[in-house]
Amino acid sequence: MAKENLSIPRGTRDFGPQQMMVRNHIFSTIRSVFERFGFAPLETPAMENLSVLTGKYGDEGEKLIFKIVNNGELIKQGSYKELLESNKEDFVNYLEKFPEVTRTLRILAQNKNTKVPVRKDMAQKFLKAVFAQFLKASYLSEKALRYDLTVPLARYVVMNQNSLTFPFKRYQMQPVWRADRPSFGRYREFYQCDADVVGTQSLICETEIMQMICEVMHRLEIEDFIIKINHRKILSGLSDFCGAPGREADMSVSLDKLDKVEWPVVAQEMLQKGFSPEFVEKLASLRTGIISFTSGDYSVLKEKLSGNELAASGFSDLDQIVALVSGFPEVLGKMRFDLSLARGLSYYTGPIFEVVPQGVKVGSISGGGRYDELTSVFGVNGIPGVGFSFGIDRVYDLLSELGKTASMPATSSKVLVVLFDEHQIPYYLQLLSSLRKEGISCELYPEPAKLKKQFGYADAKLIPWVLVAGEDEINEGILTLKNLATGTQEKLTLEQVVEKMKA
Amino acid sequence: MAKENLSIPRGTRDFGPQQMMVRNHIFSTIRSVFERFGFAPLETPAMENLSVLTGKYGDEGEKLIFKIVNNGELIKQGSYKELLESNKEDFVNYLEKFPEVTRTLRILAQNKNTKVPVRKDMAQKFLKAVFAQFLKASYLSEKALRYDLTVPLARYVVMNQNSLTFPFKRYQMQPVWRADRPSFGRYREFYQCDADVVGTQSLICETEIMQMICEVMHRLEIEDFIIKINHRKILSGLSDFCGAPGREADMSVSLDKLDKVEWPVVAQEMLQKGFSPEFVEKLASLRTGIISFTSGDYSVLKEKLSGNELAASGFSDLDQIVALVSGFPEVLGKMRFDLSLARGLSYYTGPIFEVVPQGVKVGSISGGGRYDELTSVFGVNGIPGVGFSFGIDRVYDLLSELGKTASMPATSSKVLVVLFDEHQIPYYLQLLSSLRKEGISCELYPEPAKLKKQFGYADAKLIPWVLVAGEDEINEGILTLKNLATGTQEKLTLEQVVEKMKA
Repeated sequence: MAKENLSIPRGTRDFGPQQMMVRNHIFSTIRSVFERFGFAPLETPAMENLSVLTGKYGDEGEKLIFKIVNNGELIKQGSYKELLESNKEDFVNYLEKFPEVTRTLRILAQNKNTKVPVRKDMAQKFLKAVFAQFLKASYLSEKALRYDLTVPLARYVVMNQNSLTFPFKRYQMQPVWRADRPSFGRYREFYQCDADVVGTQSLICETEIMQMICEVMHRLEIEDFIIKINHRKILSGLSDFCGAPGREADMSVSLDKLDKVEWPVVAQEMLQKGFSPEFVEKLASLRTGIISFTSGDYSVLKEKLSGNELAASGFSDLDQIVALVSGFPEVLGKMRFDLSLARGLSYYTGPIFEVVPQGVKVGSISGGGRYDELTSVFGVNGIPGVGFSFGIDRVYDLLSELGKTASMPATSSKVLVVLFDEHQIPYYLQLLSSLRKEGISCELYPEPAKLKKQFGYADAKLIPWVLVAGEDEINEGILTLKNLATGTQEKLTLEQVVEKMKA
Repeated sequence: MAKENLSIPRGTRDFGPQQMMVRNHIFSTIRSVFERFGFAPLETPAMENLSVLTGKYGDEGEKLIFKIVNNGELIKQGSYKELLESNKEDFVNYLEKFPEVTRTLRILAQNKNTKVPVRKDMAQKFLKAVFAQFLKASYLSEKALRYDLTVPLARYVVMNQNSLTFPFKRYQMQPVWRADRPSFGRYREFYQCDADVVGTQSLICETEIMQMICEVMHRLEIEDFIIKINHRKILSGLSDFCGAPGREADMSVSLDKLDKVEWPVVAQEMLQKGFSPEFVEKLASLRTGIISFTSGDYSVLKEKLSGNELAASGFSDLDQIVALVSGFPEVLGKMRFDLSLARGLSYYTGPIFEVVPQGVKVGSISGGGRYDELTSVFGVNGIPGVGFSFGIDRVYDLLSELGKTASMPATSSKVLVVLFDEHQIPYYLQLLSSLRKEGISCELYPEPAKLKKQFGYADAKLIPWVLVAGEDEINEGILTLKNLATGTQEKLTLEQVVEKMKA
């Protein structure tokens, strides 16, 4: 294969050292906050049985599942006759898709009873060939790459429901795959970082999630953001209150567009969808924009909808969360009520939320909500929970836009020891060992190359310090330490170097 | 789907919290040692283009590659005629596999020129159906799951050779997939943890790898192990010296079995392979077993083979490594020369090594070696390097066998705060916040359940401490801290609790 043809699949990415240093920083920050709040790690296989994934993501989602070709196991599991017998019905259905094949089979088989051996033989061979194709097509794939981390969680909870301790607090940071059309910011392989509390209706979980979001953002030094919050029951109540009970999904899809288009466009769309002018007018009178929970607008809206049982129940949940968070003003200060937040048409049934950075082009970087039924798709009812997810790629993009990734080195090495004198390699190795024992990442240039080349290596990898020691210096117990950014150079003892590195 | 049918694909695994706590400990230990030695992280996509992987793993390996079904893109990329035209040659080759189909096509087409419309129509329709099958089969998959981390590294190096800084020190910890028959200890999805230095022939790299292995083992508290070492050139020289030049691969495959069977079995196998009795006798006279580099046996063997240029060159490399490591007696003490070590028939050309724990049933947990040509499979020559890999599953099994995993908790929470009094939730939240600020992972039971249930939750997750505080205690500024393992209970201030947790 010629090197110019080398590529990676569309929508996938290599992450080189420089990007990985940033990504690992993001991962370990999130992981550390999740663990600080008592969430424990879970990992599930990249492949799930196809039957676990089908029927879970709607028609559009289902098309985006990456299927894996079987490695011929099933086809070998029986003789031709046995297989034909056990798959007869499916095979007949399959043949219906190819009337020409059926007709050909009939032509070839016509002479079956006239004992013309050639024809009979042909008919059988042809049938076998067609059947092999059928087997290939139908048993082509029974495994697929996971599409998200929620269905695998539900599958895991059902399979382990008797041994798990509930409430089950798990986090999961793994890639997912979607055969979406690749475009800017949309990939076919990307990481999700989910945390869920499964098996409780306690709104303390939502409160802690708000705290976790703020803690992650704080540690990543992203201070300018808001957490938009809404409640599925408020949306249901709203639709009901305005005169279209049960149509909250339709209404929400339109409302959700308000962060991109103006109200008249949304209103027009709703009219086209068959909402009455009265409905749209009533809805318009209730619109508030994105407001603080302590604002008068919030109280007024709550008051207006107070007669509606669903909406009142939703507001009651939000009020409880706000009351619990109020002990943490820095968290409450980030929270905003947003009546137009809908979080797609997913399985949420309670509070929903989304983290939106301010003053940048990057969209929401985290979101989640409460659900009543995690596992009912697998026939197990009554397991509620709440979960949320960080989008690593979005967080990375945000840090880039904030200028926090540019100066990230391509290595964790704090210092390069120059291979100045080949005879001193044993000394250099001891030097590295001493530095590493002090927790300082470091490396030796492995060849006796020219100084310029060795310094260039440190430069290119953004290693901040370079240590040089020749025979005389070594005998004196002195090292030359150079800071590559400032160009300053000092003669120091090993202890002084360690002190400097650790500072 | 009924829950009793739920399963995960054969050969794959879920890793629950308890296992993940151990696995993450292994991962972070390895990662931290790799980084301490100046290796930087790389991640490549799970999917590679099929063309990148084919022809790299031999016939047997190639069968084990998991292919991914295309999502129908290519088939839509042109009209039937265009596609037929551009795929003519492949299609004709494909048809040769199905002589019955070809014959049927011929029968149907015979009347083409007699203008019997039905027959002509049938022939075309049938051809279309067959062609659709062909397209499905040939464009079925052009992506596959990675089989190891070495080919993706080579592909990455070639694609980025102009921007990378050499020597390129990268580590990579990602899962790989192989459609192997699952069995005990053999999985279809498993992690590899590779570290390679690409672009240098310096044996300093091998020296540092020996140190890294010992450092990882030390941090994992695995002290009883040896590092077996050999050299590809010594194996070549040996085969040469004994009278079968160029047959080192054949010889090595047999020698490699010496850790499982006795010498006479190996000797018999070599005779059957066509090695002469003289060859086998000479080889027998050189056998040494697994010996220390400072032993007399090692010097004797080196002396005996000194006339052979290849072997001498191999010994010279090993002597250089031993000389460099000799400054680290704790590392040298683990190193053993093993003439029967062959590391399969892979691409290694220099020193090869394998880490074997002693006194347990678990086999080698790490191994690697030097190669002259990393990227020649992609047409780029002259890029040498050295690399090694930790088998995470083997390390996990080893830690289990050593009894180091059993007491691992299923969470990082150090303390559970009991929800004793619903009115005190705001206080409990502040308490958690204070503990977390001190770096203590903790959680609040989210529901006002019975004390027994809440304590049972902490017990089941092996959370070591439980904190209880009622209204009176809170007013007094006193908390009750219980150690679940010992059952001891103390009344402490928050400061005292923090002190205790941190100890």
